[in-house]
Amino acid sequence: MRAIIVREFGGPEKLVIEEVEKRDPAAHEVRVRISAIGLNRAEVAARVGKYPLPKSPPIRLGFEGAGVVDAVGADVTGFKVGQRVSIVPDGSSHVTEGTYAEYCNIAEEWLTPTPENLSDEESAALWMAYLTSWAALVDYVGVAHGDSVIVTAASSSLGAPTFQILAREQATSIATTRSSDKVERIRNSGADFVIDTSAGELIKRVKEITNHTGANIAYDCIGGPGVKDLAGALAYDGKILLYGMLDSRPMDLKPMSLMGKRISILSFIIFHSLADPEIRARGVRYVHEGAKSGAFKPLIARVFPFEKIAEAHEYMQSNQQVGKIVVTMRK
Amino acid sequence: MRAIIVREFGGPEKLVIEEVEKRDPAAHEVRVRISAIGLNRAEVAARVGKYPLPKSPPIRLGFEGAGVVDAVGADVTGFKVGQRVSIVPDGSSHVTEGTYAEYCNIAEEWLTPTPENLSDEESAALWMAYLTSWAALVDYVGVAHGDSVIVTAASSSLGAPTFQILAREQATSIATTRSSDKVERIRNSGADFVIDTSAGELIKRVKEITNHTGANIAYDCIGGPGVKDLAGALAYDGKILLYGMLDSRPMDLKPMSLMGKRISILSFIIFHSLADPEIRARGVRYVHEGAKSGAFKPLIARVFPFEKIAEAHEYMQSNQQVGKIVVTMRK
Repeated sequence: MRAIIVREFGGPEKLVIEEVEKRDPAAHEVRVRISAIGLNRAEVAARVGKYPLPKSPPIRLGFEGAGVVDAVGADVTGFKVGQRVSIVPDGSSHVTEGTYAEYCNIAEEWLTPTPENLSDEESAALWMAYLTSWAALVDYVGVAHGDSVIVTAASSSLGAPTFQILAREQATSIATTRSSDKVERIRNSGADFVIDTSAGELIKRVKEITNHTGANIAYDCIGGPGVKDLAGALAYDGKILLYGMLDSRPMDLKPMSLMGKRISILSFIIFHSLADPEIRARGVRYVHEGAKSGAFKPLIARVFPFEKIAEAHEYMQSNQQVGKIVVTMRK
Repeated sequence: MRAIIVREFGGPEKLVIEEVEKRDPAAHEVRVRISAIGLNRAEVAARVGKYPLPKSPPIRLGFEGAGVVDAVGADVTGFKVGQRVSIVPDGSSHVTEGTYAEYCNIAEEWLTPTPENLSDEESAALWMAYLTSWAALVDYVGVAHGDSVIVTAASSSLGAPTFQILAREQATSIATTRSSDKVERIRNSGADFVIDTSAGELIKRVKEITNHTGANIAYDCIGGPGVKDLAGALAYDGKILLYGMLDSRPMDLKPMSLMGKRISILSFIIFHSLADPEIRARGVRYVHEGAKSGAFKPLIARVFPFEKIAEAHEYMQSNQQVGKIVVTMRK
């Protein structure tokens, strides 16, 4: 079978397709014939050697994907050959070999049936984004009816899913982007409000939107000095929920910018939550329900064929996309 | 009657005793003849004009105190003339005129009987410290049996009260101080462990004390760059609880120093909690119970006569004390 092998860390050109051995599934393991792959920034980080796992090349990549059960190992009870399945991704190493391949072996507890009304491409784009925002905002922080939530870097693959989850929870989404040319596309992706932060008026605009009380939560994957403005845009008892660090510089926060309004900074990593089988089961159920009802519909920015996966990485790094980048195995 | 009036912001010498009118209590108000005053850093900040309330001189000062009911206004139901009472202080402006005076008028909802087994000096030293650490650690953060808690600036007036509350909650106290000469006194004040941070080994020592897991909570009144080391000394899911900012410089935290262990930064201001009458009632009950049982015994660093209140402020600013500074009206 064909699989991407990274033999040395570096640019997209290091994503090389090689012929490798197809492995029989071990006990409790399922072999999935991959038909679509969801791309993730963590994989760009892994490709350049900046992700915690795995540590040294050669490595295989890929957390997210959907396809068909090709073979089942001993003691697999929940899945049968021919069934459409999707990976429950958590950004850690439970995918033994990675989804950037024609086949991928995985423990059955990290699989779920693909929702009937979604294509494999859609389901490959679904799970990581919706599970992350559910686990962070609904399960961990407990977003409430009527809350206003700032969603930073809102053109990312978590943008539209987050807006849809917030709508389901009857909360207001306030998206931010530093790209003026993305404002319209983000609005069309479901945000209640969109703020172009390049104008330097984040706090003023959030205050206007929230009748001067400020937002209740800032759902932030950036970090860095921008956190100070997020604190300024929050209401009393507001929470900054860090789930990424596109900007790894210090946050430059003075204690008073938090204490005056009793603001909390919480941090969130998806695999910390999904490692708990009960949380995972609740999250998977929530996403299935949303997908079935039509409320959760992933926004796909662009689909690339497997042979052009390096181009897909380049496209992700270019930051032009709004939504999820998907790679398909179809010819 | 005599009262301290600050006619311009500045050093301790600006605390001037003047003759002022004794005021009759309004409805729901009690006039207390003050016998002892607990001193607070917030009053030093107010004296130099760096506390939010009140904003401009002339001002009167003082949040904490104990004494005897001298007169009651209309509709006062809970207190009678001659009764020993203490102020329930929250660092905000509910004390109409301030406790740095022979008499002080206050709404009865902010008064409580003085515990029978405590002197007025002890009760003046009791309420702010124990209510703050109860509200922050027990009520707001929910410290649990078996938790390890780092208590910074442990020679402060909150040190011994915090150690006693943690002992009552069956948690371990790890005190820190930057003054080598205070280590022994802090240990004697009830801390389970004391770390001299001037040695630069906070993280190493906390790891040793906690069998390499790290502490669960850092109860911090300093802020500033030191927060980075606190994050390093915490366990997975650890919480930094900011309740002061002796060091107002930026915290210089990178997002990764929080996210790797899902660390939260929470902030706490006592009057945000005590403004809620239910929380206040629970806190007052908790402190009464601890005082009655003998578990809560405030540590008094030194007692000054009212006429030497400027010296008491100087002493507080000198940072030599371990425990609470009290001013007495007794001749």
